[in-house]
Amino acid sequence: MTAPNRNTLWAAVLVDELSACGVEAVCLSPGSRSTPLTVAFANHADIETFSHLDERSSAFFALGRARRTGTPTALVCTSGTAAANFHPAILEASESRVPLIALTADRPPELRDSGANQTTDQLKLYGDAVRWFKDLPKPEPDDRKLRSLRVTAARAVGAASGMPAGPVHLNVPFRKPLEPTPVEGDIPTNFATEAPLAVNGRDGPFVETTRGRQTVDTADRDRLAATLADTTRGLIVCGPADSPTPSRESLAALAGATGFPVLADPLSGHRFSPTVDTAPLCGGYDSYLDDTDWPAPEVVLRFGGSPTSKTLRKYLADIETRQFIVDPAGQWPEAEFTATDLVVADPSHLAESLADTVDNSTTAYRDRFAAAERRYWDLVDAARSEQLFEGGVVASVAENAPDNGTLFVSNSMPIRDLDRFGRPRAIPLTVLGNRGVSGIDGIISTALGAGSATATPLVVVTGDLAYYHDMNGLLALSRVGVDATIVLIDNDGGGIFHKLPIEAFDPPFTAEFRTPHGLDFELTGDLYGLEFCRTPDEASFVSAFQKSLDRDGTQVLSVEVDGESSHRFRERLHERVQSEIQ
Amino acid sequence: MTAPNRNTLWAAVLVDELSACGVEAVCLSPGSRSTPLTVAFANHADIETFSHLDERSSAFFALGRARRTGTPTALVCTSGTAAANFHPAILEASESRVPLIALTADRPPELRDSGANQTTDQLKLYGDAVRWFKDLPKPEPDDRKLRSLRVTAARAVGAASGMPAGPVHLNVPFRKPLEPTPVEGDIPTNFATEAPLAVNGRDGPFVETTRGRQTVDTADRDRLAATLADTTRGLIVCGPADSPTPSRESLAALAGATGFPVLADPLSGHRFSPTVDTAPLCGGYDSYLDDTDWPAPEVVLRFGGSPTSKTLRKYLADIETRQFIVDPAGQWPEAEFTATDLVVADPSHLAESLADTVDNSTTAYRDRFAAAERRYWDLVDAARSEQLFEGGVVASVAENAPDNGTLFVSNSMPIRDLDRFGRPRAIPLTVLGNRGVSGIDGIISTALGAGSATATPLVVVTGDLAYYHDMNGLLALSRVGVDATIVLIDNDGGGIFHKLPIEAFDPPFTAEFRTPHGLDFELTGDLYGLEFCRTPDEASFVSAFQKSLDRDGTQVLSVEVDGESSHRFRERLHERVQSEIQ
Repeated sequence: MTAPNRNTLWAAVLVDELSACGVEAVCLSPGSRSTPLTVAFANHADIETFSHLDERSSAFFALGRARRTGTPTALVCTSGTAAANFHPAILEASESRVPLIALTADRPPELRDSGANQTTDQLKLYGDAVRWFKDLPKPEPDDRKLRSLRVTAARAVGAASGMPAGPVHLNVPFRKPLEPTPVEGDIPTNFATEAPLAVNGRDGPFVETTRGRQTVDTADRDRLAATLADTTRGLIVCGPADSPTPSRESLAALAGATGFPVLADPLSGHRFSPTVDTAPLCGGYDSYLDDTDWPAPEVVLRFGGSPTSKTLRKYLADIETRQFIVDPAGQWPEAEFTATDLVVADPSHLAESLADTVDNSTTAYRDRFAAAERRYWDLVDAARSEQLFEGGVVASVAENAPDNGTLFVSNSMPIRDLDRFGRPRAIPLTVLGNRGVSGIDGIISTALGAGSATATPLVVVTGDLAYYHDMNGLLALSRVGVDATIVLIDNDGGGIFHKLPIEAFDPPFTAEFRTPHGLDFELTGDLYGLEFCRTPDEASFVSAFQKSLDRDGTQVLSVEVDGESSHRFRERLHERVQSEIQ
Repeated sequence: MTAPNRNTLWAAVLVDELSACGVEAVCLSPGSRSTPLTVAFANHADIETFSHLDERSSAFFALGRARRTGTPTALVCTSGTAAANFHPAILEASESRVPLIALTADRPPELRDSGANQTTDQLKLYGDAVRWFKDLPKPEPDDRKLRSLRVTAARAVGAASGMPAGPVHLNVPFRKPLEPTPVEGDIPTNFATEAPLAVNGRDGPFVETTRGRQTVDTADRDRLAATLADTTRGLIVCGPADSPTPSRESLAALAGATGFPVLADPLSGHRFSPTVDTAPLCGGYDSYLDDTDWPAPEVVLRFGGSPTSKTLRKYLADIETRQFIVDPAGQWPEAEFTATDLVVADPSHLAESLADTVDNSTTAYRDRFAAAERRYWDLVDAARSEQLFEGGVVASVAENAPDNGTLFVSNSMPIRDLDRFGRPRAIPLTVLGNRGVSGIDGIISTALGAGSATATPLVVVTGDLAYYHDMNGLLALSRVGVDATIVLIDNDGGGIFHKLPIEAFDPPFTAEFRTPHGLDFELTGDLYGLEFCRTPDEASFVSAFQKSLDRDGTQVLSVEVDGESSHRFRERLHERVQSEIQ
């Protein structure tokens, strides 16, 4: 590797090592101070670059890509407020354990807090939300410093991919010249020959990382197994996780051995999974477990994040027996505070190990769930035939989502509707959402980032507020060439607030909560080069949906619904479910 | 004041006291956890509310309003990533000393770091960028706690309006119920009678604040005056400041007494000012001081922030004599590190005090600047008649901006063009920009926030990247009813990069720096209910501009230009200036 000046060399070494450690993609935004990083990424043959003009969208795109791939995506911005625009996605990455490496260019230390232009305090800008922060030293053509830089890159990837995974922040100062302009004498003659390792790295990572996984010892496993074997009412709960947790095969084995029903969050990787038929998977609990007088489980085994379903969380809050949280990071995603046991272990390994040990042949509890499921989905189907409502659109998406596709679901109502109306299906589908902090920001970009990682279809379900919030993210459709089927459920404002008691207080309900905006999103069609299609009923929606899956380019399928009416319809259906399944 | 539950009471008291302390406006975004705050603000008769769906735009809108009024604007959001969307505007507010009070709703402490939904660590979310952070205690109907809450509100306003002014962050936890739902027994009977001060506050602020200003004593003043009196080459430099610093009258007096020319940044409040004729105000220095062999000044007196003009900063960097920085906050906005004196004093008081003492009758240096100014603006006028270029559009805006209007100028090229091509005018005009961190984010919202504060015309000048970056901000035009004349200089990408050496390296220049996007912004017309008008030449631009000032509604006047050609034209003009004025 040769370089015209120390900045170019420094950035090239950093990027080279990030690539050697597994970084495959970077999101770049235009800026001056970040020039050495941008040039190094653009020049690197093995790293795919995505150019975004809005740093907030850029960071969410990187988040989506890393969420889908499980490998860290890098992010570059110039100095100043640009870096703060990363903050929302950094928080989401932190809470949902997505590996990101944010590289923020900065002025050198002597220009900070000096009145220099486009300069602010970027040190620890994201506080405790990052797994690791480092303010890099000034670029120098020095053997030890460049080896230190390679180790820093390796550590950054390691920290981002560790347990728990998450964002890492490297603040990278540069002095001028920022461009790859030759600077005579800036790099010692024969430097690459004298410091070959520093300059060229190794064939592979500079430091090879071997990462173990946590396994409980046999005695602990046996105690746990005994608890599971010795019950007639056990439950497995799988909360949100970007890749199925435990793995689909491990979960099928565990469910088979214990006979426990599995309540699978739509974001768990198990609701829509080829193993649906082999494990007794349930998806309707958000409705039929509400205010139920069913007997509580005696043992609960919980994987993944806190379930989307408030009904389920409340159901689990009332039990007074054993409740195991399995979390390889040893955290505590359980805000009802009724868990009795924390198992810090690799979920797949634990599930397989327990499946090998337990043999519980009780079936009554599972059968009760299975019967409820059958009845529940019949009721949903019947309701869906009566009228088009928001939940029906989401149900239809789940029903028609393609094999091996990616389904990205926005927060607020879409994820709740998918939870309640997304019937388990035996297909390999990756369902993702931003459920770490559950914001409605960055939805389009996160989805497109996820879609950028595969050649299989991408389906996005979003409400109108989330669509508006990240409309800038639509620019990626043309600029970085992602195709998507975007289902826009447009109820002209915050439909979710009809669910809340504030609905009864108007004003300020309409002006400050429901916030109708009257935006005609059809205009985003020409603006962002996408096909916009209004689908007034289920038949036209399904037809347009299936056509979109087969077509290139992005189609937005807009379903205009009345938020209040959809809410009332959900309520009526819920009452029917409660009266029939108890 | 009566309230149905403790949350409602708590929020009402907080908002009541913010109002008593001078807060007149709030930007609200829809959310559930923030319900008590939203309800309290919406119910308050004396606080104007602005509803924004994108929290990033909301925060910039609040920033713009506070920038224009000088009084703190409040900001409310729900918990989670919403709060991180405030971060870019918080940084800008911090660096440019704009008073903001950010109220972020939060879960109660027991639900933090617990897996609870839409929850992240909001404590000290903005790090050192805020003047004050406080995590409020849980709402309680308790005399002492409510008096403490009133004092907190007063302190928040005080900290935001202090020296230096800036953002304040109050994190406000609430437990359910969040709505103004009656909760029996939640507030003690007769509580308002027993704790009248806590509940109803005083007639006026709970704590009346009297704030002094820093004045140097007579001996110090006389030493400073002697330095100014005893020179033949003195210079006054006025950098960016939201309100003219020192005041227009004080500066006129000081300039008159010293005979020093005044180099007035376009954001200083002095370039476009009724006092232009009474003080020898210069605006063309960014061009004619470049690489000049003029004699350096012997004494420089600097007010406001660091000047926009790099030429001027470099000119001042080379001098080796006395350079006084006058900053009431005692900070150091001087990144060339050649200042010799810091004067921590109220700029207007100091200027008046010096004007009363100094009597310097030298004129040669001032005359040189005056001659250069005359010749410079002739050259600019001649160039403008040759072809339409970006700088000419900005010059035209400055020339035609209306009396008492507000002109908001984006970062990147517009502010640089205004600096170089905005001829001083003797009219009262308020010129604002986000020059604290100089981001291109939030420009539309900041401008509309500023415009919301007055009934006089608002003119915005922006490039296409900044227009795109905060397109969401345009929703405020219809939702909160601000009128504007938006001048969109569209060169399809980052024209500023043509100024930089990276231009010679393509790739990656076009893909990663110039970043052409091809967006047809005419489509934003129908989307956001504004009139979009293409103005291909100066005559049509000026005509459309003047019509827009007289009309209701918002007009976007789009001038499509070639960024590279504009840059080359600027270069040629600059060469002419350098050959003629030296």
